[in-house]
Amino acid sequence: MIYFDNSATTKPYKEVLESFIKVSSEYFGNPSSLHGFGGKAERLLMQAREQIAHLLNVKHNEVYFTSGGTESNNLAIKGTALMHRKRGRHIITTGLEHASVKEAMDQLKELGCSISIIAPDKNGIVHAEDIEKEITPETILVSVMHVNNEIGSIQPIKEIGEMLKKHSRVVFHVDNVQGIGKVPLDLYQASVDLCTISAHKFHGLKGNGVLFIRDGLRLSPLLSGGNQEWKMRSGTENVAGIVAMAKALRLTINNMERRLSQILSIKRYIFEEMNKIEGITVHTPEKNSAPHIVNFSIEGFKAEVFVHALGERGIYISTTSACSSKKAAASSTLMAMGIPEKDAKSAVRISLSYDNTMEEAEVFIEAVKENVIRLREVMKS
Amino acid sequence: MIYFDNSATTKPYKEVLESFIKVSSEYFGNPSSLHGFGGKAERLLMQAREQIAHLLNVKHNEVYFTSGGTESNNLAIKGTALMHRKRGRHIITTGLEHASVKEAMDQLKELGCSISIIAPDKNGIVHAEDIEKEITPETILVSVMHVNNEIGSIQPIKEIGEMLKKHSRVVFHVDNVQGIGKVPLDLYQASVDLCTISAHKFHGLKGNGVLFIRDGLRLSPLLSGGNQEWKMRSGTENVAGIVAMAKALRLTINNMERRLSQILSIKRYIFEEMNKIEGITVHTPEKNSAPHIVNFSIEGFKAEVFVHALGERGIYISTTSACSSKKAAASSTLMAMGIPEKDAKSAVRISLSYDNTMEEAEVFIEAVKENVIRLREVMKS
Ligand SMILES: Cc1ncc(COP(=O)(O)O)c(C=O)c1O
Ligand SMILES: Cc1ncc(COP(=O)(O)O)c(C=O)c1O
Repeated sequence: MIYFDNSATTKPYKEVLESFIKVSSEYFGNPSSLHGFGGKAERLLMQAREQIAHLLNVKHNEVYFTSGGTESNNLAIKGTALMHRKRGRHIITTGLEHASVKEAMDQLKELGCSISIIAPDKNGIVHAEDIEKEITPETILVSVMHVNNEIGSIQPIKEIGEMLKKHSRVVFHVDNVQGIGKVPLDLYQASVDLCTISAHKFHGLKGNGVLFIRDGLRLSPLLSGGNQEWKMRSGTENVAGIVAMAKALRLTINNMERRLSQILSIKRYIFEEMNKIEGITVHTPEKNSAPHIVNFSIEGFKAEVFVHALGERGIYISTTSACSSKKAAASSTLMAMGIPEKDAKSAVRISLSYDNTMEEAEVFIEAVKENVIRLREVMKS
Repeated sequence: MIYFDNSATTKPYKEVLESFIKVSSEYFGNPSSLHGFGGKAERLLMQAREQIAHLLNVKHNEVYFTSGGTESNNLAIKGTALMHRKRGRHIITTGLEHASVKEAMDQLKELGCSISIIAPDKNGIVHAEDIEKEITPETILVSVMHVNNEIGSIQPIKEIGEMLKKHSRVVFHVDNVQGIGKVPLDLYQASVDLCTISAHKFHGLKGNGVLFIRDGLRLSPLLSGGNQEWKMRSGTENVAGIVAMAKALRLTINNMERRLSQILSIKRYIFEEMNKIEGITVHTPEKNSAPHIVNFSIEGFKAEVFVHALGERGIYISTTSACSSKKAAASSTLMAMGIPEKDAKSAVRISLSYDNTMEEAEVFIEAVKENVIRLREVMKS
């Protein structure tokens, strides 16, 4: 199998699974239990928190564990809106966001918030000036993703953070689910207040995520109860999953340092080959895009048909994002970029991990070519 | 080690861990992905849902996966309150509930809901009549736990459900985290609309739970996004954890049938021995209590001191519930039952699993006796 759908989810590292099993079987205590066996679990939790804080270059009391990217995004957005509802009810976001941001905003709209949605340029990038224009005294939150999950464009988080320094009462949330371990982002330097990551996107396990919450910032919890995670997120901690996530993050960040050049040369090769094939339009911008995502349309092919055609050869790619893949709607990101609906409906995404090889890319390009040629023959006859 | 803290969390079954590893390593695809590899994960998810539905005696489209008991409780309560806020804002619950119910209610109070809290009798049991008296045309929700996590008392869920049939617009939520696999409950027969369970309490993995949502009932989601779980709970599904939970539930329900008599005789033995020791008061009622929980106070011993004294011998028990164990506050359940604060502060809980043995119970009783005798000598001298 050639797995080119790493933005949907990744294969957990062997070492990650080993950690999970070790903790689950030998240290299964509840970190809240008073006895020594609970204490062991508590220490593991603390160590994982410190490791992750170190890797993200933040303080350990800024790392909050959640059940994944969707929960972190919902907590960041709804938690801020509820906490600061008396100060204001205006939120700014972009036309590029993941469904978990978009839908959280829609729910808040029903509850009386007003939402401004900033359109990206034709390369799928939003600009700090466009965001600033929308800020009012009522604005409590700006939420912008770092790397777009459909086309891989990188948003100017640092510039937006810089601009927001002039508006110190506005909370800045960044969905970094696709950027982590692929495109560096210094959270302090970029003045980020809230940042989402999700373990299963970097070879950790599904059901584990982090919300970075800047020291001193308070959110209204979505899950209240036993007061775990400094009352911001209750529920018995998934200690084994969290330890596994810490390991996955460490291995990923190590990989980034060692293997960024390899993934970049695979991406470059795919770009070059794609550009040679007639009828293919690449939507991912060449500049300011992440190393692992390439989005393109094939004239005359419906996205699903193409995904299935490659699937038959054991090559797994995606129609835009996994969440919306079964809706058969055109990608909202591509539409926001001004790409015609027809092209948006034939757009597919490949997404690499550090474990993919140049040989796999070559097999993939061959398969694309053969499919395009076959299609053209069918159409001629 | 003698682990008598199974209400805090349980040891995952070996088979549960095996399923988790198999799914995580071989079927790690995203169930939302369109390709065949995602399809395999989707089928596993569907099978697990059907298995769990079968074991709970409900329909597969009534089983919603969450990150655990705390999330299921928060979703049930806040989701109902938000969804039905135009119909009414009054909620009824009990003085016995877990922090995740209590705190969710407190948050709703801040948002304008009014909450009636029913006191239990001196055996830690609430009565349907007392609930009915509080119902008004504004009442949208009644939330009552099945088995109390601190003293093990069983609530008359069937009677309450029966009574609520006369008030068909009131949604009925039951926190069954402590009851599942220990005390049978037929959800349809008891007219339950929403029911919470959590995998790590029955030898599954932390971070996985179920909310049963009766067919046709709609909740406002806490986690919105990619529209997983019929839009009621978004986020990439923890397929491996869910498959593992289905296995844990099956093994637990099988154990119940085979091994209920064993756990009951251990409980009876502990009760009898406790009653013989001077200075010990058992708070768990002899009738209408679950097979696995015994709560008692030792005169003159602070709960923490006793937990640590047993911990030194490798016997792990708990001060009331794990979540509140570090707050050193007296158990709110015991206070609600009218037990004096002094006794409530010296209350400890043991909680069994089907894997505990009579030999362990004997060692435990010996340790209790020795500690009580030692204490008395210290006090005399
Ligand atoms: C940009 C982005 N944000 C959030 C999410 C949601 O993360 P999770 O699947 O952990 O809920 C995803 C992936 O699904 C994503 O690509
Ligand atoms: C009665 C009860 N409800 C809810 C919960 C919360 O479950 P979880 O730990 O899965 O969040 C617990 C245990 O902590 C419990 O005992």
